[in-house]
Amino acid sequence: MAIHAVIMAGGAGTRFWPASRAKTPKQLLPLGADPVEPLLAATVRRLAPLIPASRVTIATGAALVDATAAVLPDVPRAQLLAEPVPRNTAPCIGWATATILRQDPDALIAVLPSDHYIPDEAGFLRVVGAALDGARAGHMTTIGIVPTRPETGYGYIEVGEPFGGELLRVERFVEKPTRERAVEFVAGGKHLWNAGMFFYEGRVMMRAIEEHLPELARGLAAIDEGAARGDEASVLAKVFPTLPSISIDHGVMEKARGLAVVKGDFGWNDVGSWESAWELAPKDAHGNALPDGTVAVDSRGNFVCDRTTRGDKRMVALVGVHDLVLVETDDALLVIPRSRAQDVRSIVDELKKRGDTGRL
Amino acid sequence: MAIHAVIMAGGAGTRFWPASRAKTPKQLLPLGADPVEPLLAATVRRLAPLIPASRVTIATGAALVDATAAVLPDVPRAQLLAEPVPRNTAPCIGWATATILRQDPDALIAVLPSDHYIPDEAGFLRVVGAALDGARAGHMTTIGIVPTRPETGYGYIEVGEPFGGELLRVERFVEKPTRERAVEFVAGGKHLWNAGMFFYEGRVMMRAIEEHLPELARGLAAIDEGAARGDEASVLAKVFPTLPSISIDHGVMEKARGLAVVKGDFGWNDVGSWESAWELAPKDAHGNALPDGTVAVDSRGNFVCDRTTRGDKRMVALVGVHDLVLVETDDALLVIPRSRAQDVRSIVDELKKRGDTGRL
Repeated sequence: MAIHAVIMAGGAGTRFWPASRAKTPKQLLPLGADPVEPLLAATVRRLAPLIPASRVTIATGAALVDATAAVLPDVPRAQLLAEPVPRNTAPCIGWATATILRQDPDALIAVLPSDHYIPDEAGFLRVVGAALDGARAGHMTTIGIVPTRPETGYGYIEVGEPFGGELLRVERFVEKPTRERAVEFVAGGKHLWNAGMFFYEGRVMMRAIEEHLPELARGLAAIDEGAARGDEASVLAKVFPTLPSISIDHGVMEKARGLAVVKGDFGWNDVGSWESAWELAPKDAHGNALPDGTVAVDSRGNFVCDRTTRGDKRMVALVGVHDLVLVETDDALLVIPRSRAQDVRSIVDELKKRGDTGRL
Repeated sequence: MAIHAVIMAGGAGTRFWPASRAKTPKQLLPLGADPVEPLLAATVRRLAPLIPASRVTIATGAALVDATAAVLPDVPRAQLLAEPVPRNTAPCIGWATATILRQDPDALIAVLPSDHYIPDEAGFLRVVGAALDGARAGHMTTIGIVPTRPETGYGYIEVGEPFGGELLRVERFVEKPTRERAVEFVAGGKHLWNAGMFFYEGRVMMRAIEEHLPELARGLAAIDEGAARGDEASVLAKVFPTLPSISIDHGVMEKARGLAVVKGDFGWNDVGSWESAWELAPKDAHGNALPDGTVAVDSRGNFVCDRTTRGDKRMVALVGVHDLVLVETDDALLVIPRSRAQDVRSIVDELKKRGDTGRL
């Protein structure tokens, strides 16, 4: 049973505007602790001891294939799957799984997001190994992140009795909770964050899709037939847009039986906003994360992110400012308090209203 | 008696970094209410109903002559006096006065700073007319600005009895006061701000220099002799650096007798910092002074000043920030709270320490 990976790399990433754009979403940006490595490249590199790039499939959007290939020189181009339109994660995972099964009917598959940051890579690989053991034993298995705060922005996984070893039964998936419930979850110790990582035998997933999403199963079968005739592209263009737009969580995981979860405790960070990016960036003694050459006088807790591409860099000078995020690109400059990082969306909304497609 | 003007335009202007530089000091920047007209050009234009550009002399530094000429197309190039080195205002005014007297021995002269902003131009001209009347009557005359706040950053003029009409006796010049004294000055009604504007008959000033600054008088005589021999440039280069470096206030005005002052109440602003520039700039309903195209969400009291020269302007996006000054040039970006605008100097000091002459 060879192990394959499916990396979901289709995100739009408006939360990192102006660095992230429709054509340069979050996973293509170096938002982890490393100032150069894009999150997607880090995801593939991190897996390499268990799953080499030759067995990695990337699910992305048609408009992103070239930019994605550019950051992943070791992944064979044929393994970059371009969705004609975004249809949420169930069609994406179903199509990638079916594609891998055509080459390797016994494939064991790890599905991972492309845009998270994981500092403890050895710890991560150990947990992935345990989750793959669960998948080998026939369970669709997920990794639940041990919560470190009462986060209301994530879904949770309630754990039940152990199957044995580190493998625990999934009692149920829980939607994003209220603040009160989130506090209870952290205190109770029975809830983990759903980080969107799934491990399964390919044919187990296909059976689950047939059972819970028969419409998707029929569409995938049509694409398979097209591929067998050497005509995948045109069938895909016709069929993919008709597939049900639903997440794998809602469409399959919440309905399936025998799900397993392994606890993950490796410093996971979903890099959800400029605030998270500041947390991860190297900082000076005053909590500033600044490009070389910046002059900061009496300033604390600032994050200056220079994403310009011109050769002649501008010098940034800060005097008496605190806890600000300042992001420069060739065509835009954002200034926002770190505490309001989520509100970058309001700028993107305004640009849409203005029809400023060049900056979206 | 023809009226001539001497505009002092040699300032270094570190307070407007990064827009102001050694080669583009404050007076060459459009920091008044008009977004295009440099302060120096406004100074010359404002005077034109009383003193045409053909009788305006500009005293500036050798390094600034070309840039100065570029903003003053109507001032004859021969009337741009280039000081080989800066020697404070007494040598500057003395040399300019001597130069004008060579052409017009009966000249009546108005000396004005180049980098102030005056909204009520008609009111200003009326007061200048009254000050010139004082000069015609033989008084060295100044304009004292009616104070609107207990400012500790300016020198004051204590007024005495009237000479007649609007012309008041200068009792004494007062150095920058403490806060307490400044409050008393404003309440007392006998103190005016010294705005560095002087009006005199040319030969009256030359006699005052001979009396109070004989060393300067000797130097100016040597330059005059050089000019008579058609050799002004080389004498100037030799003599000017040896002239006493002293202000006209300390060197002459504080010692001279019979000085007069006219009260000025025309909305004068010395544009002393980015805070003043924000006060003068047109603002939206939220107190923001922003370039066209800026997106400001939930932001108040900000000043964004785009001094870049590239054709492709960057869009600035502000979310949730208040009372900030943000200045962009091609090679630098400054962020500073309006309330700390004076501390721009700390950046200039840091650049000097780094030897970053390109940005000074």
